[in-house]
Amino acid sequence: MASTQDNAVAAATTNNDYLVQSDDPEHPANLIPELCRKFYNWGWVTGTGGGTSIRHGDHIFIAPSGVQKELMKSENIFVLQWPTKKYPAEERNYIRRPLKLNPSACTPLFLTAFEHGAGCCIHTHSQWAVLVTLLVEREKGPDACFEISTIEQIKGIPRGKGKGMLGYHDTLRIPIIENTAFEEDLTSGLEAAMNKYPDTYAVLVRRHGIYVWGDNVAKAKTQCESLDYLFQLAVEMHKLGLPWVK
Amino acid sequence: MASTQDNAVAAATTNNDYLVQSDDPEHPANLIPELCRKFYNWGWVTGTGGGTSIRHGDHIFIAPSGVQKELMKSENIFVLQWPTKKYPAEERNYIRRPLKLNPSACTPLFLTAFEHGAGCCIHTHSQWAVLVTLLVEREKGPDACFEISTIEQIKGIPRGKGKGMLGYHDTLRIPIIENTAFEEDLTSGLEAAMNKYPDTYAVLVRRHGIYVWGDNVAKAKTQCESLDYLFQLAVEMHKLGLPWVK
Amino acid sequence: MASTQDNAVAAATTNNDYLVQSDDPEHPANLIPELCRKFYNWGWVTGTGGGTSIRHGDHIFIAPSGVQKELMKSENIFVLQWPTKKYPAEERNYIRRPLKLNPSACTPLFLTAFEHGAGCCIHTHSQWAVLVTLLVEREKGPDACFEISTIEQIKGIPRGKGKGMLGYHDTLRIPIIENTAFEEDLTSGLEAAMNKYPDTYAVLVRRHGIYVWGDNVAKAKTQCESLDYLFQLAVEMHKLGLPWVK
Amino acid sequence: MASTQDNAVAAATTNNDYLVQSDDPEHPANLIPELCRKFYNWGWVTGTGGGTSIRHGDHIFIAPSGVQKELMKSENIFVLQWPTKKYPAEERNYIRRPLKLNPSACTPLFLTAFEHGAGCCIHTHSQWAVLVTLLVEREKGPDACFEISTIEQIKGIPRGKGKGMLGYHDTLRIPIIENTAFEEDLTSGLEAAMNKYPDTYAVLVRRHGIYVWGDNVAKAKTQCESLDYLFQLAVEMHKLGLPWVK
Repeated sequence: MASTQDNAVAAATTNNDYLVQSDDPEHPANLIPELCRKFYNWGWVTGTGGGTSIRHGDHIFIAPSGVQKELMKSENIFVLQWPTKKYPAEERNYIRRPLKLNPSACTPLFLTAFEHGAGCCIHTHSQWAVLVTLLVEREKGPDACFEISTIEQIKGIPRGKGKGMLGYHDTLRIPIIENTAFEEDLTSGLEAAMNKYPDTYAVLVRRHGIYVWGDNVAKAKTQCESLDYLFQLAVEMHKLGLPWVK
Repeated sequence: MASTQDNAVAAATTNNDYLVQSDDPEHPANLIPELCRKFYNWGWVTGTGGGTSIRHGDHIFIAPSGVQKELMKSENIFVLQWPTKKYPAEERNYIRRPLKLNPSACTPLFLTAFEHGAGCCIHTHSQWAVLVTLLVEREKGPDACFEISTIEQIKGIPRGKGKGMLGYHDTLRIPIIENTAFEEDLTSGLEAAMNKYPDTYAVLVRRHGIYVWGDNVAKAKTQCESLDYLFQLAVEMHKLGLPWVK
Repeated sequence: MASTQDNAVAAATTNNDYLVQSDDPEHPANLIPELCRKFYNWGWVTGTGGGTSIRHGDHIFIAPSGVQKELMKSENIFVLQWPTKKYPAEERNYIRRPLKLNPSACTPLFLTAFEHGAGCCIHTHSQWAVLVTLLVEREKGPDACFEISTIEQIKGIPRGKGKGMLGYHDTLRIPIIENTAFEEDLTSGLEAAMNKYPDTYAVLVRRHGIYVWGDNVAKAKTQCESLDYLFQLAVEMHKLGLPWVK
Repeated sequence: MASTQDNAVAAATTNNDYLVQSDDPEHPANLIPELCRKFYNWGWVTGTGGGTSIRHGDHIFIAPSGVQKELMKSENIFVLQWPTKKYPAEERNYIRRPLKLNPSACTPLFLTAFEHGAGCCIHTHSQWAVLVTLLVEREKGPDACFEISTIEQIKGIPRGKGKGMLGYHDTLRIPIIENTAFEEDLTSGLEAAMNKYPDTYAVLVRRHGIYVWGDNVAKAKTQCESLDYLFQLAVEMHKLGLPWVK
């Protein structure tokens, strides 16, 4: 019965802790800390870098900014009521906001992924992702995307929404956008890349890392893993003088 | 007393959950998830890639397709009655089939290994395996196998069924087959490689990974580890200009 | 009511075990062993190398010398009363001193960091840190510092005390000092580097490792992670012929 | 009161299980499995390779051959009465011998280390160790030892029995022996290297790995870690064109 407005008022007073309290390990407020622990161990979210967000019905769960990712707890999670404004940040409709923390600076980028139908969005600072953005720039110029073909792991990446997965003989293409001084300013670049590559489930950010999304948590995570595998393989192939596209 | 046909009917109704329920950590339905967790941490089954199957008497236990390997549970395991058809897939004799999951696409390849007497078969997407298939192709051509000699770890690989282990001065040879668009279509290539190299316990798949089998779970796993060690060493040796065969 | 002198006497008799006994995982005597376990897993404190110290009010908690870092316990922690002498070592004011152990040889370096306002100081033998000190020396000479620019992870390092964090377009500079035969003799070099680079939160030691500090434990740890990420990336960039400064 | 002979008889009947049963985590029969789990995670004992032995008073505790190192249990440990024969193997004085297992093929090499006063001996197949043996052979010939100087981690290695630790300006030298077809045949090479380098606490085996020992378990393990760190650093230095000796 409570309107969104009422929820916002309630958040200010009760902070709606029940939104992040669940015994279900599959609950987004439990999944985000668990995922962040894994990502920390892979070296993807070193030094508070990176972030993760899950959409669950009309609720967007968002990791906080500037925390040690492997120590994150459910109580540190922000909850936004969907739909919500991307800009200005202060008008985003938080229905749960932990004291003394700020939501991830990636929030408008996560919201962009959700506008495109994602159920989960992951941002990493993977060194392999950073290195391929540098190699692509040097070898093929600033406008080129990352391309790799004829590697089995490509089959872990969708061909596009409702189009099934890429095949072994397909070429995977991931657009690369230039980094900006402030993370939120990446949003227009991300949107432009999504418009130019409407089938992509990921966008690389030069000298920064990658945004990967998926229809749900499992798909976002496994697609992120497959891409990172391909970036690492590509860097090693480059060292050995092996071309990325057959 | 129940015929195979009866078992199939039972599977449709009771699903034979007892086949994957055991307190014994050595039970195949417990071993497969445990192995997959280890393989995930080694980077062998990134992004739902790879798979594992165990033969236990007349039962073949098979990991499901498309799941996060480190989260797999005993209840996700398929059970085939042995012997069973390799083709067509829909005539395979499943006596336990988890709802909403599909058996690993590697199933006909696992069955090929079991036909040759294996007790366990492991499939990984190890990057070291992929890289050696690419290096062998460039350095020695598409028909060459992987060869390495005079490295102690070679002694972890059998010389052939009932022939003991390779010696330090022997040359280890692992055949390489070309990848195919669909995993099940690798079967004839795998069989051809097994016929040409009757003593091999592993077949590399170009740009894809490796299939390794063994007389039992411990042998398949430790042989897979020894091979991966040798592939990683071989890639590093190549970077340093050191030849693989003395 | 007890004077510092009284505390010292008490230490000799009761050893003040209560100073390192707490159920709070955030207590320095619990945090140091927990941090050291993580650092061991990152390869930063191999073979008893490296160390960590935390200032908590007027108490300095210090890891012991020569122990296996992943096995450290709260009861192994030394406690110094602040302020205390850096030299001579035997006049340092220990109010808790475990039997059969010696305090870290890094103690005067930790004390130097605390004099400059740090709340925590971490010393690692990270191989990436060692390699960048060697690469800088060869490429730019013995007086050059490590420089890297235009990499997102730079934003994890402060611009200086009370000056906020570095921006994406800034250049991160970390001074490098020469190693000495005895760890405590690094102190004057560390102080000179701090004077020359008053905004730095870290000093590299050639052929040895790095000292990183921060206003509190979380900042020291995440800054150490961000720097190590940048050193690893820099070594990989160098292998691939990519310049560190754009 | 029981003579060694009596113990041997008892072993045949009761198998002296009490020798490997203890609640003390520092007991050798508990330490060996714990160490092997760590070594497995470092990639030192892949595929049943490598091994560990501890001398505790007149008892030598030895890991079994051919088992998965991360799954080893206390009950798998062999116990030899010290002193015992090195050759022939069948006359070694086992006072506890697990059924269905064989003692490590490294046993005579472990015994050689104990004859020289060691309290613990570790054998790994570390790839970094293998690679430095190959690089030394190519760069300096088959008779050269591994040499590295002016790296802080060298201080983790003793200068010799009762001589303290190496200093930063010292050169660490580790002899390299040629591998043999059978592990036990390494014994004479190991003894010759120990005679030629009486101060060494480790011997590299070309194309195989390393034997490292120490006065006790902690020293053997931390020396093994320091050496592996130095081998890994040396390989990376070689890739970057940086000399090992200043």
